[in-house]
Amino acid sequence: MEKGIFITIEGPDGSGKTTILQMLAQNLEREGYAVVATREPGGIEIAEQIRQVILDPENTAMDPRTEALLYAAARRQHLSEKVKPALKAGKVVLCDRFVDSSLAYQGHARGLGIDEVYSINEFAIENMMPAMTLYFDVAPEIGLERIGKNKGREVNRLDMEKLEFHQKVREGYMIIAERFPDRIAKIDASKELEAVYKQAEAKIKELLNS
Amino acid sequence: MEKGIFITIEGPDGSGKTTILQMLAQNLEREGYAVVATREPGGIEIAEQIRQVILDPENTAMDPRTEALLYAAARRQHLSEKVKPALKAGKVVLCDRFVDSSLAYQGHARGLGIDEVYSINEFAIENMMPAMTLYFDVAPEIGLERIGKNKGREVNRLDMEKLEFHQKVREGYMIIAERFPDRIAKIDASKELEAVYKQAEAKIKELLNS
Repeated sequence: MEKGIFITIEGPDGSGKTTILQMLAQNLEREGYAVVATREPGGIEIAEQIRQVILDPENTAMDPRTEALLYAAARRQHLSEKVKPALKAGKVVLCDRFVDSSLAYQGHARGLGIDEVYSINEFAIENMMPAMTLYFDVAPEIGLERIGKNKGREVNRLDMEKLEFHQKVREGYMIIAERFPDRIAKIDASKELEAVYKQAEAKIKELLNS
Repeated sequence: MEKGIFITIEGPDGSGKTTILQMLAQNLEREGYAVVATREPGGIEIAEQIRQVILDPENTAMDPRTEALLYAAARRQHLSEKVKPALKAGKVVLCDRFVDSSLAYQGHARGLGIDEVYSINEFAIENMMPAMTLYFDVAPEIGLERIGKNKGREVNRLDMEKLEFHQKVREGYMIIAERFPDRIAKIDASKELEAVYKQAEAKIKELLNS
């Protein structure tokens, strides 16, 4: 393999994507692929610093556009320091969330506009779009219920209040998936973990063997 | 005055722009204008935090595009928290450096491309371009000599090594001034301070009385 392969995994929390990314990475390594499993900010010092600014609970005055630019900045640095070198070394890079998260969450759900958020991300990534994106599609109600179970608690009022936002996120992902049909493969993430894994694995095998 | 007026001042270090901005602010206040004299990050906590990431001497791995995105993020926050409210309150806002600095320094001199850097700044400022920009034009040799004098030292080897970079910055400002002839007024900053001030004052009076 002369050049690596860049695969991103997208979807809401509770879609199982993080667990399945680890399963995919282990399985591919067992088959002899050199794999880097990562997620932004991926332990990159500069990206971690940017992340701290984004997540600082004191920063309540943060403008949504400032936030979108900071995500793009952290993305650029993670790409530059971790993803690009791995791809250059011929590795398979599996990345939990990438540009599409910004498009769905900030572009669509927060209302900044998918095209506008895409434009700053184009600047950040310089055509380094993934060869394939697995979009883990699941109804927000199911995703939130799973998160609730994970934390050993019922879905509470706060989770429910956010339902509309999560529905907008899903709507955003749908719009993006329609816009990039060759890149984005939709995975039915409403099923049991093993069944979701099988779908994801099949898509990746298809790509790696093409 | 129903709405304020946004004026930016651009040019290299050593062009006298910071001193003259203060003189302009004082003079306008004496004449009864409500004036806000500012510069990015302008004491805005979130913008200061972003600035710290940019300037941290440990962050040698910072990619130029990460840097450009961080500047745009800090700019957005400063605009949102300080410039916009002041303009809404009908004030004259004089801002030391703005979008054009990113275009000249990072877009042209660092080679990222003026159009590309402009695109992320458009996202950051949402059409909030200044009514007028005073570009303090001076040959880098003169600017560097003034900086040297200010610090009580001769122009050293390091300053001279950077001469080519500063020439690129000036070239960048020229390109931008040609692109936005209605907005950007060129000031000959090679002259004595008082003569430079007179030019700047005349331009601002022209704008305020129009």
